[in-house]
Amino acid sequence: MSERARVLILGGGFAGVGAAKKLRRADAEVVLVDRHDYHTFQPLLYQVATALLEPTVVGHSLRDLLDRQDNATVHQATVTGVDLDACEARFDELAPITYDFLVLGVGAEVNFFGTEGAAEHAFPMYTLPQAVRLKDHLLERWEAADRDPSLVEDGVLDVVVVGGGATGVETAGAIAELYRAVFARDYPGLPQQKARVVLVEAGPELFSMFKPRLRSYAATALGERTVEVMTGARVSSVSPTRVTLNTGEELKAHTLIWGAGLQGNRLVQGLGIELARGHRLAVGADLTLRSHPEVYALGDVAEITDARTGQVLPQLGSVAFQAGEHAGEAIDRRLAGKEVKPFRYSDKGTMAMIGRGAAVVQVLGGHTMTGKAAQAAWEAVHLALLPTNEDRAKAVLDWAGVTASHQRADRITIGDE
Amino acid sequence: MSERARVLILGGGFAGVGAAKKLRRADAEVVLVDRHDYHTFQPLLYQVATALLEPTVVGHSLRDLLDRQDNATVHQATVTGVDLDACEARFDELAPITYDFLVLGVGAEVNFFGTEGAAEHAFPMYTLPQAVRLKDHLLERWEAADRDPSLVEDGVLDVVVVGGGATGVETAGAIAELYRAVFARDYPGLPQQKARVVLVEAGPELFSMFKPRLRSYAATALGERTVEVMTGARVSSVSPTRVTLNTGEELKAHTLIWGAGLQGNRLVQGLGIELARGHRLAVGADLTLRSHPEVYALGDVAEITDARTGQVLPQLGSVAFQAGEHAGEAIDRRLAGKEVKPFRYSDKGTMAMIGRGAAVVQVLGGHTMTGKAAQAAWEAVHLALLPTNEDRAKAVLDWAGVTASHQRADRITIGDE
Repeated sequence: MSERARVLILGGGFAGVGAAKKLRRADAEVVLVDRHDYHTFQPLLYQVATALLEPTVVGHSLRDLLDRQDNATVHQATVTGVDLDACEARFDELAPITYDFLVLGVGAEVNFFGTEGAAEHAFPMYTLPQAVRLKDHLLERWEAADRDPSLVEDGVLDVVVVGGGATGVETAGAIAELYRAVFARDYPGLPQQKARVVLVEAGPELFSMFKPRLRSYAATALGERTVEVMTGARVSSVSPTRVTLNTGEELKAHTLIWGAGLQGNRLVQGLGIELARGHRLAVGADLTLRSHPEVYALGDVAEITDARTGQVLPQLGSVAFQAGEHAGEAIDRRLAGKEVKPFRYSDKGTMAMIGRGAAVVQVLGGHTMTGKAAQAAWEAVHLALLPTNEDRAKAVLDWAGVTASHQRADRITIGDE
Repeated sequence: MSERARVLILGGGFAGVGAAKKLRRADAEVVLVDRHDYHTFQPLLYQVATALLEPTVVGHSLRDLLDRQDNATVHQATVTGVDLDACEARFDELAPITYDFLVLGVGAEVNFFGTEGAAEHAFPMYTLPQAVRLKDHLLERWEAADRDPSLVEDGVLDVVVVGGGATGVETAGAIAELYRAVFARDYPGLPQQKARVVLVEAGPELFSMFKPRLRSYAATALGERTVEVMTGARVSSVSPTRVTLNTGEELKAHTLIWGAGLQGNRLVQGLGIELARGHRLAVGADLTLRSHPEVYALGDVAEITDARTGQVLPQLGSVAFQAGEHAGEAIDRRLAGKEVKPFRYSDKGTMAMIGRGAAVVQVLGGHTMTGKAAQAAWEAVHLALLPTNEDRAKAVLDWAGVTASHQRADRITIGDE
């Protein structure tokens, strides 16, 4: 057995990978466990669901990401529980692992808020398999309509997207463009203009995190792309072919996409500590659990309060990644007996894509961008954040194909046989 | 109803797509039906199975391929039968379609020759879902060994490949390189040198279609890549963890890849006409059935005899594509009342890849190439044959990544959830 301290990282998302990389030079054995063999670049999941990007750009081998880090090992296994007092995590198919430091970055799971039928029939957008499944489902609806066009009147092509945040808006915009630009050519015999894309938001407006100017820009840009926006509305039930709203209105739609509502991974319910809102773990300014200073909780599983503003930080990839890097550095310093500073989130701005030539960007200080300039900024930032040059090159190729010819190379259904 | 003749093309492989494209200017309604929504570039399937290429390079949307052809429509459906006398094809989920001309390019299915356990446990390599499934299986074996290294002694990493033709040799070579170059780094804790890759061929030598010089080159190149070649041996039974040969020898191996043995799609058994060897349809020099001059049979479902040599043409993509183009042109000419010439296969050579820097090429007239020059020729030809520039660019990226850094970007398991 090693005499070195062991840092166990549960979850290979932005938080876990950020922590692992910052531990490269630490005098520690770093063990990262994820239920998948890949890291997911979640901000681009909606592009997989709409055939804009191939899955291998958005999912990247964890072993490749940590390839040159000699003190790190990776295992693929599902964590079944953590004993905080024994400092030990348990897994299916893998022997228990004890730790000196634990980095909990196991992410979130979808919260359907008890909506009738949602667990069975809604399409969540949090993982790569979910995005692929949604893409296959959409393609299969169009093939079914091609075989039997009478299904169009029954809503086989209609899509309801729940949630007026980035996931919902980006998904609704990309689906509308897929329908109007690509499928209109792929299925010339179908009345694609009858296919509705409806975005449902419970609050009074979309994009509540953006300034009013960007909100109204987004509403206009979605309208131009034929997305119907319904604010102040909630989905009360869903069946395979119908979506019912709290107003009593029934929408004919064979697809309901759930872009709203996350709660902490169910793992945290078994930790025996009190949970914050949304089944998340409240952490202090150092990102550790108050009762367990050797445990860092990060990303979608954590509730981090910004010390300067008193606000809870949003569940964004950039927050998760910075928190991961902070935790990795902090553990490194603690192992070396050095002082540790509190976490400070550096807000580089918020951005979202609505469609070709239409994006919104808002940076600290109040500066905003829209339109093609914002799209260019969005693309530059997302390319920079992708883990390798090959991923970047493929994303550029895919996006160039869409821009040049409206084609989406990934619109095939592989599935099983 | 249209007054124009209808050409029904069953199968969107090399034969079907070749025929459809040559009918672009024909005074006919062209209907292409495939059970998938994509064309499969079968010669590169082994690269999907070994994480060298992403699936979307090898599968290409059929609707995209025929996008600009106004007289063609595409449907995704599974053909269940053809009534040759009524000139009608039946489908699941799609109404029957009558035809004036039929192009039968429905391909082959695997023939396990009654090998015990093969239908349940062997991994065939004929379709894109099969290639993805094999890749996922191989990756999962390594993750299982990572969790429990004692499985290595039980053969969890060992692979037996059946068939000394192009599919078997290319797959065995690519797996050996994947193991020795990539997984050796991804799984530093595992004794990858203990993982065996065994290629089993029933005949006395590999690559019977090549000249002796290329056969011995291939045997040497495989040996250098640590592939163990067993000639004169057959698999007599397979279980999830063991492969038994006809010699009685039992190999510990949790993966058996079936790269040998095809027979015509079972559809042809219901046509009510006598079948040639391997459940294929014998066609005349014009590629039609003798009893039904309006029916063209092409590709892996057809037995085409070369009029000049009296030999049956091999089951290659180039034969299928040329036959498809010939059928499309012939139907176009017949509709216009013009004379039709018999089919002549233009043999541009045969080639196969063994591994990095090692390929074999043989062209008519006796010229051969090996090594890096042959690899360059192989890559150039396969790139030229890919359907679009985007597919070509992605293949170049994937291959460059392998050459530059031994990385294989597609080594992730997406699967279901």
